[in-house]
Formats: sequence, C-alpha cells, structure tokens
Amino acid sequence: MNKLQLKEDERLDNLLADETMKIIQSQSAFAFSLDAVLLADFAKIPLKKGKILDLCSGNAVIPLLLSRKTNVPITGVEIQARLYDMAERNVRLNKLEDQISMIHGDLKDMPTRFGNNKFDVVTVNPPYFQTKNKAHQNENHYLTIARHEIYCTLEDVVKACSRLAKSGGKVAMVHRPARLMDILTLFRQYKIEPKRMRLVYPKKDKEANIVLIEGIRDGKPDLKMLPPFFAFYDNDQYSEELEGILYGKQ
Amino acid sequence: MNKLQLKEDERLDNLLADETMKIIQSQSAFAFSLDAVLLADFAKIPLKKGKILDLCSGNAVIPLLLSRKTNVPITGVEIQARLYDMAERNVRLNKLEDQISMIHGDLKDMPTRFGNNKFDVVTVNPPYFQTKNKAHQNENHYLTIARHEIYCTLEDVVKACSRLAKSGGKVAMVHRPARLMDILTLFRQYKIEPKRMRLVYPKKDKEANIVLIEGIRDGKPDLKMLPPFFAFYDNDQYSEELEGILYGKQ
Repeated sequence: MNKLQLKEDERLDNLLADETMKIIQSQSAFAFSLDAVLLADFAKIPLKKGKILDLCSGNAVIPLLLSRKTNVPITGVEIQARLYDMAERNVRLNKLEDQISMIHGDLKDMPTRFGNNKFDVVTVNPPYFQTKNKAHQNENHYLTIARHEIYCTLEDVVKACSRLAKSGGKVAMVHRPARLMDILTLFRQYKIEPKRMRLVYPKKDKEANIVLIEGIRDGKPDLKMLPPFFAFYDNDQYSEELEGILYGKQ
Repeated sequence: MNKLQLKEDERLDNLLADETMKIIQSQSAFAFSLDAVLLADFAKIPLKKGKILDLCSGNAVIPLLLSRKTNVPITGVEIQARLYDMAERNVRLNKLEDQISMIHGDLKDMPTRFGNNKFDVVTVNPPYFQTKNKAHQNENHYLTIARHEIYCTLEDVVKACSRLAKSGGKVAMVHRPARLMDILTLFRQYKIEPKRMRLVYPKKDKEANIVLIEGIRDGKPDLKMLPPFFAFYDNDQYSEELEGILYGKQ
C-alpha cells in the first residue's frame, strides 16, 4: 500500500471486516454507509455472464462489494471529480481494473453514451434528500451533492435506470421509506415493475429506516416482501445477519 | 344465549380469547381470519367523536372488534344477505345495537346513500383474489364472493373509500403483499395518501404475507413503515404481540 495514494483528509479503511479489500474514504467527501453494504448484499446479480452498471457510485463502494460476488464486468458512474478520483484509486488499490470501469460523468448522459437496453443489472444508491429547502442542505459541498438531489432528481435516476437496463433486466435501489411511494410510482411510470422489497429495521420494535427494492424492466406485477432485515439486536450488537455480511460469512 | 340464533352449520365462537364477546360463524359461509383481527388492531380510530365505516363487513367481525376500542358509532356494509343476517345477529348477541348499524348493500352504492366526505375512518378487508381465472375460484358460493373480486374490484373498493372518507379522514385496509403495488397506485389515484404501513411476517425468516396500510384522504406524502409484526415465534407459538391482541392484553 502506497501512502501517496491518500490525498487531503482521506483515510484507508477495510471495506469489510475480513480485511481482504481496502477502500479510500474521506469524512469530508465520501464515506460509505450501511446502505451501500445492504444494497450490494440485496441485489441479485449474474455470476458469469452479463453486465452490471452502478450509478451514483461515490468512491466505488458498491462495485467493489459486488466484485466479491461475480466475475462479470461492472461499470460505475460518478459525477463528482473528487469522488471519481477516489473511486479510480480504489479500483487500482484492489487490483480490480480488469473488472471495474469507472466513468466520470452525469447519469443522465449515460443512455446516450451506452444506448438503451444494455445492462443486466443497474444498482443505485441515489441522493436521498429533496433540495427544496436550502437550509436543510449540508454545508459541505461534496456531501451535499452526494446526499441531496442537486445534480439529479429521483425521477432522473429512475428514468436513466429504465433506459439503461435491458428488458427483463433488474434495477436495484436503496432509499428511505419516506420516499417509497415516489419510488414505486416512478418505477411503474418508467416500466420497472417492483418485484422484491426488503425493509431494514434498526431493531425489532423500530420503524424501518431503509428500504431495498428491486424491479424488473418490463416485468409482470408480483411483489414479494422479503423477510425483515434487522441491523441490531436489542443489546445494540450487530444482528447475526449483518455480522455475516460485514465479516464476509455469507 | 339463545340457541335458536344459530342457523344451518353455524357455530358460536369466542371473538377473542378473553371470552367477553361471542361471534356467530360458519365454516361454509364466513369465519373471520387473523387479517380482520390485525386490521382492527392496526386502524387508528377516534375514541369519542366521529363516525367509522367498515366495508366488506362479513359477519361484522371488524365492527365488533372496533367496538372494544371506541364509543363512536360504527356502520358496517355487507353485500351477501346470509352474511348480513349473521352480522345483524352478532350485533344483537353482543348488545351493540346502539353502537353498530349493519347495512345490507353494495359498497359501490354507499357514496350515493351517505354522500361524499362523511366518515372519519373507513376500514376494509376486501376480497383478495382477482377473478380472471374461474378455475381458481372457490366452489363454495359464499366464500367465493367473500374472497374473490366478484361484486367489487380493488378499484371499486378504493374509489368508495375515497368518496366516503372525510378530507383528512383515514382509510385502513388489510391485503396481500402481491397486491401492494395496485393498492398504492389506486390510493394515490383516488387521493388517499399512504401514511402508515405495517408488514406482517409469519416468522422472522419468512416473507411478509399480510400488509396493513392506512392512508389519509388528501394527506401529504410521508409514509412510515411501522415495526414488523410477527405472528409466531420459531417454536410455532403465538408471538407476544399476537397473544396480547388475542387475549385482549393491549
């Protein structure tokens, strides 16, 4: 590991607890969250044939996590130059240049770049917050863009996913329950039929705070609600399932 | 208890395990399910002021259950004459004539009968199955009507709820997850904004098999996903929460 790869306030973390992969992060620019880990676990991806696209990639956390599960090529798209640069270094750091390609660009331009109907799976961990109220936006520019709908709205994201996914291909997203109605409405509007949903509850007696949803482009209606995911036990320890993911036991 | 109140193959059951209320049922015509018990538990109802309407009432199980929680008047609507007759006897049997009024009629006619914008809460446990394939329909006529969309489609139900509920009033429904997309789409179409959803999982590691959803007529978007409801523990015993409901401990 070459220390010169770290810039400004960046640090080198383990991607997962098993320490087999490393990831460059920065508290001021981008550090991955449980959401990314859960989405990578939730998404059904092809093992040998096909192509995967990850939008709003940040520091490439989802492509890195998915590379542990599949040999197919993964393309990541990130609009922020600083995060794209971190992502590029993360790919090289983990010697995944042959599998993961990062693109510095706007997801709205990707259908023009790749054409419609191209990917077997599209994953996305989009900005969660609507931008109507500037006062609620994070003062940090990098984090604001990553978390708020500055460069893309939820509709931009779903529209791009719909065009980029093959007919019969999957779109997997992680988001907040408060936006679930909008996600489902937009999925149907853009012909991505919701097929699998999983709610993540912090604990057994708490409201869900994360929703994982997968739709199939041009799929038939039949939504399954997967077993609940609990992040923690009542004693605040990781649940067995989360520990299994974090320690690579699955 | 007068035995003459029972007809044909009817039997007298306890409404809940605390034996304070009785209910006439018939395996061939209508026997209430866990779904009704869960909906009555889930629905937020006014305690002292307001009016409640229950559609697709069957033998009046939901009005009976709700009467335990509130003093406001409850109206039940049932289209099948035999079930309406059972419902009427159930109301009298429990001496609830002052609180519960049963109507023998079609829910589609209720907006004309009552007018729009009339009820604070509308509850409904509608037929779950679409009727496209006659072979899948129950051969028993009473059960077929109760379970399949013979006399009303899901859209008929949502449309009636939307007209009958006051602006700001609640609509609470129990259904199957496979129809959730249709429910949410219809709710939005008919201006009932989904606000609270609760998934019922048979056990911790099983897919949800019941969905409870409450919307507010003309409400603002903000959907909460309530803590999961488990019906059973891994050892097949009732969960503490279900036992609490069945034994009236809540």
